[in-house]
Amino acid sequence: MTVNYPERRARLAALLPACEVDAVLVTSLVNVRYLTGLDSSNAAVLVGADGSALLATDNRYIGKTRGLDVETVEAADVAARLAAPGVGIEAAHMSVATFIRLGEGLVPLEPLVEGLRAVKDDDELELLRTACAISDQAFADVSARIGPGLTEREVARLLEARMVELGADKPAFESVVASGENGAIPHHDPTDRRLRAGDLVTIDFGARYQGYHADMTRTLSIGEPAAWQRELYDLVAAAQRAGREALAPGAAARDVDAAARSVIEAAGHGGHFRHGLGHGVGLEIHEEPFLGPARTGRLEDRVPITVEPGVYLPGRGGVRIEDTLVTREGGPELFTKTTKELLVL
Amino acid sequence: MTVNYPERRARLAALLPACEVDAVLVTSLVNVRYLTGLDSSNAAVLVGADGSALLATDNRYIGKTRGLDVETVEAADVAARLAAPGVGIEAAHMSVATFIRLGEGLVPLEPLVEGLRAVKDDDELELLRTACAISDQAFADVSARIGPGLTEREVARLLEARMVELGADKPAFESVVASGENGAIPHHDPTDRRLRAGDLVTIDFGARYQGYHADMTRTLSIGEPAAWQRELYDLVAAAQRAGREALAPGAAARDVDAAARSVIEAAGHGGHFRHGLGHGVGLEIHEEPFLGPARTGRLEDRVPITVEPGVYLPGRGGVRIEDTLVTREGGPELFTKTTKELLVL
Repeated sequence: MTVNYPERRARLAALLPACEVDAVLVTSLVNVRYLTGLDSSNAAVLVGADGSALLATDNRYIGKTRGLDVETVEAADVAARLAAPGVGIEAAHMSVATFIRLGEGLVPLEPLVEGLRAVKDDDELELLRTACAISDQAFADVSARIGPGLTEREVARLLEARMVELGADKPAFESVVASGENGAIPHHDPTDRRLRAGDLVTIDFGARYQGYHADMTRTLSIGEPAAWQRELYDLVAAAQRAGREALAPGAAARDVDAAARSVIEAAGHGGHFRHGLGHGVGLEIHEEPFLGPARTGRLEDRVPITVEPGVYLPGRGGVRIEDTLVTREGGPELFTKTTKELLVL
Repeated sequence: MTVNYPERRARLAALLPACEVDAVLVTSLVNVRYLTGLDSSNAAVLVGADGSALLATDNRYIGKTRGLDVETVEAADVAARLAAPGVGIEAAHMSVATFIRLGEGLVPLEPLVEGLRAVKDDDELELLRTACAISDQAFADVSARIGPGLTEREVARLLEARMVELGADKPAFESVVASGENGAIPHHDPTDRRLRAGDLVTIDFGARYQGYHADMTRTLSIGEPAAWQRELYDLVAAAQRAGREALAPGAAARDVDAAARSVIEAAGHGGHFRHGLGHGVGLEIHEEPFLGPARTGRLEDRVPITVEPGVYLPGRGGVRIEDTLVTREGGPELFTKTTKELLVL
């Protein structure tokens, strides 16, 4: 894969005149990776309005910057090496301590690179497709082994180990396996609770592949579901479908959210769905754009995003169903292809 | 394990009068976890000079704050919920954007909680001991399978999967497996390069257990080492021993570094050891205190820390040997117990 980093930097450079700066000091490590390809725990890059770039990292990474079209300098404090009066900084990423230490004259800027990152190029879409395919395959392999007696933690570990065997860098985030009444907690950490007949089990997981993050949730039933469980599942599935169908270039973020949320509200469960509908994925597991009732902005073409409504009933359990898709003219492309029929194990 | 969170907050509260604030807004998520036990991706806690605490998190975590001696509030923007004029903030952790948004009157403070965290209580030491024991066992199990033909990436994945099987939350950090000439890069990411006879292989890895991070490095030889490889290994082992022996409550951070570094410099390799000797470990893989030529401060008792000298020869390879130990009166306690004899596989 030959990513065109100079082209990415040129797109950033084109935004600088409107910010009234000649250069921006990029200190978010994910943004540095996006602009230069360097995956480092200590790096910064100064991008000029002419598209020029000066990279700073420490000597642990010197051997890794070969082939980059950037100048490499040694510096323990990489931001200090590149800061100068009049330079723009990423206000969302620079700490107050660093800002004070680097002295006057730096210009706090709103996020710029995050907006560029929302729209993916072909190379990025292919990496995300692979990350999602690994997640699908791991789910298929592991769901065949899920049944009464396994603990939540064991299910999470089986999935995570299988994703790595299939080529993932690592899990994209800490997996959620929430069984029975734990399903009422949207971000439940897996425990030693054993699955048993009568449980709904919500599994939220994904693979990271070459830096790109997949995100998928399925809710399973251990044994035949009760009527209320089936009803809840069908409701969330209908909401999720409505959300997916509303995904389109040009759609308002809040309208996509509303398409799914209105289905849940109409069933009287609006108060049991208290998070946003979805979020962009890419080099981060949560990135621009976000779908929610108070979100502004419209979707563009080629934006990978999740659609993940849920209903959570305190003390009883919950259902969430989530796909990763990408916006396309003519309808979204589905990246996570595992069935959304209720799996009864 | 019944961690005494109120006692931790009381120690923080005792530092506030000298900072001339009545309360500090803690926004570092690791520091929030240390002070409250809540492991959240969106939380903040306001600790008053009287030891009182007000926790803010969003509704995904409401079900997880039960049992905490804190008040829970719902807030998407948790820092905004708790900020007020005259309140101290963690300048190293709050972004410039948040600082600007929350308005005037916040008081940037130097790190406080990090200093408290450096000295561990018995519960924390036991978790670190377990994290290191898992790392030792995984290394023993996997090193029996290492030999010519395996790739660097395969070695890393075997170790990581085995640590999780043995009870780790996950790997403590992205493992380094650096074979042959790749050993000259201190932070080498594992590649598809296959191990072969004549390689030295540096393996830097560790387990995270209940949030606490182990860190260990061993360098192996694939087949009988050449004379220069054996010599380099013995040099680094001698430097590492000198560093360990210099670890003591009251020792200056720079003196511990010098104890190891002087051994390497005396052999003419000072220019090939260009990172600090070690770092604290705990809820983060790198935390206070740090050992290096320019580091100030002295070690206290009960401080877990790494000792990890290395020599890196560009184009040829390298050796690093690292243990996690804890400072103790009467001599450090070794947590990573894998042999430091050169393993020939």
